[in-house]
Amino acid sequence: MHNFTFHNPTKLIFGKGTITQIGKEIKQAGLKKALMIAGGGSIKKNGVYDQVTGSLKKNGIAFTEVWGVQPNPILTKVEEAIEAAKKEKVDCVLAVGGGSVIDTSKAVAGGYYLDNVWDAFENKATVKKALPLFTVLTLSATGSEMNSGAVITNTAKKIKTHTGGKVLYPWSTILDPSVQTSLPWEQTANGAIDALSHIMEFYFTGEHDETSLSVNEGLMKAIIEVTDELQENPKDYDLRANLAWACTLGLNGISAGTISYGDWASHMIKHGISAVHEEVAHGTGLGIVFPAWIKYVYDSKPSNAEVFLRWAKTVWNADSVDEGIQNMKSKLIQWKKPTSLSELGIAELDEIADVIAARGELGAVKTLDKNDVKAILELAK
Amino acid sequence: MHNFTFHNPTKLIFGKGTITQIGKEIKQAGLKKALMIAGGGSIKKNGVYDQVTGSLKKNGIAFTEVWGVQPNPILTKVEEAIEAAKKEKVDCVLAVGGGSVIDTSKAVAGGYYLDNVWDAFENKATVKKALPLFTVLTLSATGSEMNSGAVITNTAKKIKTHTGGKVLYPWSTILDPSVQTSLPWEQTANGAIDALSHIMEFYFTGEHDETSLSVNEGLMKAIIEVTDELQENPKDYDLRANLAWACTLGLNGISAGTISYGDWASHMIKHGISAVHEEVAHGTGLGIVFPAWIKYVYDSKPSNAEVFLRWAKTVWNADSVDEGIQNMKSKLIQWKKPTSLSELGIAELDEIADVIAARGELGAVKTLDKNDVKAILELAK
Repeated sequence: MHNFTFHNPTKLIFGKGTITQIGKEIKQAGLKKALMIAGGGSIKKNGVYDQVTGSLKKNGIAFTEVWGVQPNPILTKVEEAIEAAKKEKVDCVLAVGGGSVIDTSKAVAGGYYLDNVWDAFENKATVKKALPLFTVLTLSATGSEMNSGAVITNTAKKIKTHTGGKVLYPWSTILDPSVQTSLPWEQTANGAIDALSHIMEFYFTGEHDETSLSVNEGLMKAIIEVTDELQENPKDYDLRANLAWACTLGLNGISAGTISYGDWASHMIKHGISAVHEEVAHGTGLGIVFPAWIKYVYDSKPSNAEVFLRWAKTVWNADSVDEGIQNMKSKLIQWKKPTSLSELGIAELDEIADVIAARGELGAVKTLDKNDVKAILELAK
Repeated sequence: MHNFTFHNPTKLIFGKGTITQIGKEIKQAGLKKALMIAGGGSIKKNGVYDQVTGSLKKNGIAFTEVWGVQPNPILTKVEEAIEAAKKEKVDCVLAVGGGSVIDTSKAVAGGYYLDNVWDAFENKATVKKALPLFTVLTLSATGSEMNSGAVITNTAKKIKTHTGGKVLYPWSTILDPSVQTSLPWEQTANGAIDALSHIMEFYFTGEHDETSLSVNEGLMKAIIEVTDELQENPKDYDLRANLAWACTLGLNGISAGTISYGDWASHMIKHGISAVHEEVAHGTGLGIVFPAWIKYVYDSKPSNAEVFLRWAKTVWNADSVDEGIQNMKSKLIQWKKPTSLSELGIAELDEIADVIAARGELGAVKTLDKNDVKAILELAK
């Protein structure tokens, strides 16, 4: 078991009817004016916007708004929001939306104090200071509401990558799962796959980690169970709440993060696919890549091969890793998700491998070069 | 799933060779002089004292020492330490030891600002301010190193009870599991039972809590697994580390605490036994009481009876709750622990029931009065 430091200062306020607490949280922190960042406008339809702005007004918090964050959020929107933050002299950032909105808001909060925000994503600058960040989560998937990382796409450079820093933990996050009961099935399933993928990025690096492996098996089984039930009962509050909490736990460092810093090769491969095929949703791509990664890396006989076998047995009731992978794919099919690149009409495997390999070697369980990536893409074909 | 707020600001530094970081943690917080609180002196034998004091000196942190905290820590020691803190003009408290030392230190940190520290334990005063608290954990069991609660015994009043408050979270905790490799088996087993009991106090209140139930099942299974292995290999670092991490997770609010505020009847019954038989170790008493509580409450047909059954199935591979209880008792016997009060020579069931009932009704899954408590003690006889 490796050494780790766990220090997650985010205050998570979870449950029905909690959104109206946001103004009080900001006020109690001694702050006066927020830059509210949001997506395409769905929060105006589901009542979240009214709850948030009502709470801000009630608590005397002034605010200005930046709209239009898109899925796979982009640098130009970050830069636009930093300009607005400076012009409007805000003293904090309030993200109201899903992971894309929160990641954008983190980049704004940290970028506010940098000459060039993209430097933080290219490791040319360190995020040491940030505007206080608050979030109201409306779509559970990425776990960004309770961690310190952000992923942004630079469309000019065709790079999707991440930054982080302990000043980027949200000060307070409000997570009211009842606003998620109206989500369409595809977003629900993608969120579940995203959370499962986060957990697996850590899980498969495990070796002498009985506690974290066992806790994460519990978490993966719960995600599968409640997602199955949500397919039947999408409006059930308790199911939404359990999936939401599992997504947060999936990347808040407490369970998965204690095993290692993670493998992340599957995520990098998926980012490469998105670079060529922007339309591929994050969860969709991960669902296709991960089984191929598991197959390829397990067959290469890693030193912790027994962890792959216990994953198959414990999470998928299978007797072998191949059977575990098959059961996972069957679950994806049941969830109406594709399990191959060809189903999405993606055939440019060489081009995608080039894009990925251009960023260097990847992975922790097995270090992957361009040939390995191509082989994994072939398995995912 | 009920609403909850999770906000645990403790910085946990976990792993081999981490103790020498304690001075830096205190220095970085801008503090100058610590009141070090410790137990009977084992930290002088295992090298922990030298590591801690060396680190304090290296970082220019002055310190004064209070020794002699006993298991089931007592109020008079708390009062002695508060006096020392005032006389020596310290600006923080440093606990070096197990749960008893940390609980004492929390009472000192909060009591420093109260007219009468015991008022906080009788709900006559609220702990709103506290000296900054740092801990170096040497015995994993209670989880006190990463939560905000403390249990102290008032020997004059014959009351063992708790207080808490968000200012009582340790600022930083150092947990180096390698100092636990020399622990005797009985303390190891008692720690494991203590952690299992904390988890069960929350688990059995669950109902619509798939995620937390499943995560906690993973945690309980891990504790049983690594404790079994520690019985064979008590000096194995990884096993110690996994048990230590599980004990911390067992009561830091992240998994168990999201289900409810817990039942705590078994703990209250155990406290009553200790009031009459001071010599009963915490883990020993809980191991005897909890199976009896499970049997009694399950047979009363609680609304969440299915959770009892899934506990038996998932944690103990049993087909019924009775079989689950039997398997748990077999495990305790394998761990060389008693499973009945009579094995400890305890026969004063009426007297114990009186002591417990004097504090009022108890429990959340089923509210227990004096007759219920007597019936549970009969089952534990």
